[in-house]
Amino acid sequence: MKLNDNIVALATPSGAGAIAIIRVSGPDAIALVAPIFKAKSKKNLLDQPSHTLHLGNITDGERILDEVLVSVFHGPKSYTGENTIEVSCHGSPYIQQEIIQLLIRRGCRSAEAGEFTLRAFLNGKMDLSQAEAVADLISSENQASHQMAMQQMRGGFSNEIQKLRQELLNFASLIELELDFAEEDVEFANRDEFRKLVSRIQNVLKRLIDSFAVGNVLKNGIPVAIVGEPNVGKSTLLNALLNEERAIVSEIAGTTRDTIEDEISIGGIGFRFIDTAGIRETEDVVESIGIKRTFEKISQAQVVVFLLNAEKFKVQGSRFKVEIEKIKNQFPQKPLIIVANKVDQLSQPQLEQLAATLSGVEGSQYLPISAKSGEGVEELQQKLLQFVNTGELRNNNTIVTNSRHYNALLSALEEINKVQDGLNHNLSGDLLAIDIREALHYFGEITGEITNDDLLGNIFANFCIGK
Amino acid sequence: MKLNDNIVALATPSGAGAIAIIRVSGPDAIALVAPIFKAKSKKNLLDQPSHTLHLGNITDGERILDEVLVSVFHGPKSYTGENTIEVSCHGSPYIQQEIIQLLIRRGCRSAEAGEFTLRAFLNGKMDLSQAEAVADLISSENQASHQMAMQQMRGGFSNEIQKLRQELLNFASLIELELDFAEEDVEFANRDEFRKLVSRIQNVLKRLIDSFAVGNVLKNGIPVAIVGEPNVGKSTLLNALLNEERAIVSEIAGTTRDTIEDEISIGGIGFRFIDTAGIRETEDVVESIGIKRTFEKISQAQVVVFLLNAEKFKVQGSRFKVEIEKIKNQFPQKPLIIVANKVDQLSQPQLEQLAATLSGVEGSQYLPISAKSGEGVEELQQKLLQFVNTGELRNNNTIVTNSRHYNALLSALEEINKVQDGLNHNLSGDLLAIDIREALHYFGEITGEITNDDLLGNIFANFCIGK
Repeated sequence: MKLNDNIVALATPSGAGAIAIIRVSGPDAIALVAPIFKAKSKKNLLDQPSHTLHLGNITDGERILDEVLVSVFHGPKSYTGENTIEVSCHGSPYIQQEIIQLLIRRGCRSAEAGEFTLRAFLNGKMDLSQAEAVADLISSENQASHQMAMQQMRGGFSNEIQKLRQELLNFASLIELELDFAEEDVEFANRDEFRKLVSRIQNVLKRLIDSFAVGNVLKNGIPVAIVGEPNVGKSTLLNALLNEERAIVSEIAGTTRDTIEDEISIGGIGFRFIDTAGIRETEDVVESIGIKRTFEKISQAQVVVFLLNAEKFKVQGSRFKVEIEKIKNQFPQKPLIIVANKVDQLSQPQLEQLAATLSGVEGSQYLPISAKSGEGVEELQQKLLQFVNTGELRNNNTIVTNSRHYNALLSALEEINKVQDGLNHNLSGDLLAIDIREALHYFGEITGEITNDDLLGNIFANFCIGK
Repeated sequence: MKLNDNIVALATPSGAGAIAIIRVSGPDAIALVAPIFKAKSKKNLLDQPSHTLHLGNITDGERILDEVLVSVFHGPKSYTGENTIEVSCHGSPYIQQEIIQLLIRRGCRSAEAGEFTLRAFLNGKMDLSQAEAVADLISSENQASHQMAMQQMRGGFSNEIQKLRQELLNFASLIELELDFAEEDVEFANRDEFRKLVSRIQNVLKRLIDSFAVGNVLKNGIPVAIVGEPNVGKSTLLNALLNEERAIVSEIAGTTRDTIEDEISIGGIGFRFIDTAGIRETEDVVESIGIKRTFEKISQAQVVVFLLNAEKFKVQGSRFKVEIEKIKNQFPQKPLIIVANKVDQLSQPQLEQLAATLSGVEGSQYLPISAKSGEGVEELQQKLLQFVNTGELRNNNTIVTNSRHYNALLSALEEINKVQDGLNHNLSGDLLAIDIREALHYFGEITGEITNDDLLGNIFANFCIGK
């Protein structure tokens, strides 16, 4: 990994805006920018203290490219740990391009995706799981994913792993020390205490591994299958669910979503609504395939919403019941919410009859709503939230969200179990040491103490350019 | 115009990126951010000097929204002239939104389009034509439009107008002073010198007014009509013309163009290529309409490129000549380049025959090319550039690009002409003064010394949010 060159990239989203930031990092970052920056104050950029801002012109010979603000950071007090310059220029793509090209001509190299954060990792500014959290933070779309990424970036997860690793390392050293005195048959590592430590590590690993089920779902959005016919009002319902959030979103230009059927944030948690074709029984082969697909989607979902048109209940009520029971037969454990839409069109006796019929279905909850008027929508949001295990989130526990970490934790647990087995069978120190080293290896993979170029390449390739 | 409130907006393009900038400006900008910013150094933001950068967390109560860099600017040493904070946060739309919402809850107001620049104008940091140049600078897409916007933003145009205005104002004062001494029949303002000044102002105004023809075209791109049949290779030609630029463009992620037929920058000048259906003579009514449209587009273009397939010259040569002559008849003054494409498919004798036939057309230039191999493409670029009046640009003269300025200059010239008339007819000072005041009014409109809310509203509505 070469770190003696200087990299440059646009750090703000591409396209026109008021301001764009061009980031330069490397040993010569300040020296490379200084000759092309003419400060209003006539000061030389090279003489300026860290964490200061300077107004002036970026010039290419006689030509003024832009009036800019330049931020100066002296390594190691910078994001990357290297000397860093951030040029805040006018947000014209043409100007951005001209300045970046000028810097490249002067000896900078175009940064690769995530290369600033990679340098921060290589320069010891953060460990690998923290670096990975930076990408998660940027792509976080709701409070839950934001909170998990923020906790990880601030080192919550790393600290937990580091602590276990350190304790395990201490024992490993003692056991390996015993090997040096093998002929004297000493025992530096107290086996009882070691057993306790191994058991504690197992518990922590199990909790972290279990948290991945929650973390992964929270990060990617809770999958909710909506079962219902096309004209039953699915998109009106999704719009109604989105409503509260949309009011906030649309206030800030450009943050509106393209597709409302994608992910909706409810109470800070992302829900992914999966449209299905319904499961209406039919002779038609095509529809049977549709039913098969619906069941597949239900099997991937964490919650099922059965949406029906209350107006049609009188004629189709018995069919609805058959369909609902079919779902419960197929997925007895899957939470099911029966939502009767358009109840604003029903009389009080009709409503009562509807409730009497639908609230009796075992293992399901019944909810009358009107997506149009908004009646019952908040209750539906509350019900959806009930099915999400946010306990870990609320208690501010460390939650594993990254499948790389999850796999490393699984492997570490496997090794720790072997250590436990070894202890139970009074395995010799040299054999114990091998399994301990393996477990330590997996801990080190998470925090990046043990790494390789391929792994780093894979991780940082998913970053955006400029980060 | 209320300036005692505090405004906030996202200043970088919306969407996800490495970094986003949230800008806060107003008397309480620093005081509003200080309580929600916990500096790593524990320092209070309120005590920090201007033009310094601080690492820390933006917090909403106990909740950490993001780790950010905060830039502190004390008014009047800021873009707006007011106290200003720029928060550089992680580029997640969710985080941007959370921070902006927090600031709004704490008393900031969502900034309107261009409101930061409007404040810069109202606080005397720049005049109106400079403020307008900021928007032009952000939307500049090539060297020419960039250079013109930069010159205007740096006050080149304003200085020229201000100087004339000051000289005119001096004479106006003297003439109005004469009115106070009307009974004594004194003449403070030397009429000969005034005549000279008026003549000088007329010359400057005429030059500026004339420059608009160039400036407007350079700003919006030189319109070039391409006349040729659909399969003649128009898009290959445009791709070939774009080629050199595209290599640069694609190096920087996200700056690739959506449509290649839009605007192409050649030698720093933007060219807008207008596709036409050709003018093939036909009995068909629909095609006749097509020909009419082609002529309309040619009339709007500054240069015409007649593109033909050299391979088909043997069979269609006489038709091509008829069409070319038809264009020359209709538009005798319009520069015409006859481009024979696919010459790589021709033998030397064929090439010579082609040249002999086509280079003879009066008032046109003939150019054999191969869009595929690139042969002749550079010559075509050179020929296109020949037709652009870049003299003013090269000489670094002030070029008027804004139709508002153009109209004000026309009106000012009209009033100055009246003043000259008045001088020639020995008009009394009080009547002269009226026309001088009118001319001064139009000068003031350009720089914004004379303005009103409607005018400002119109100008800044075209800005982006956050600038």
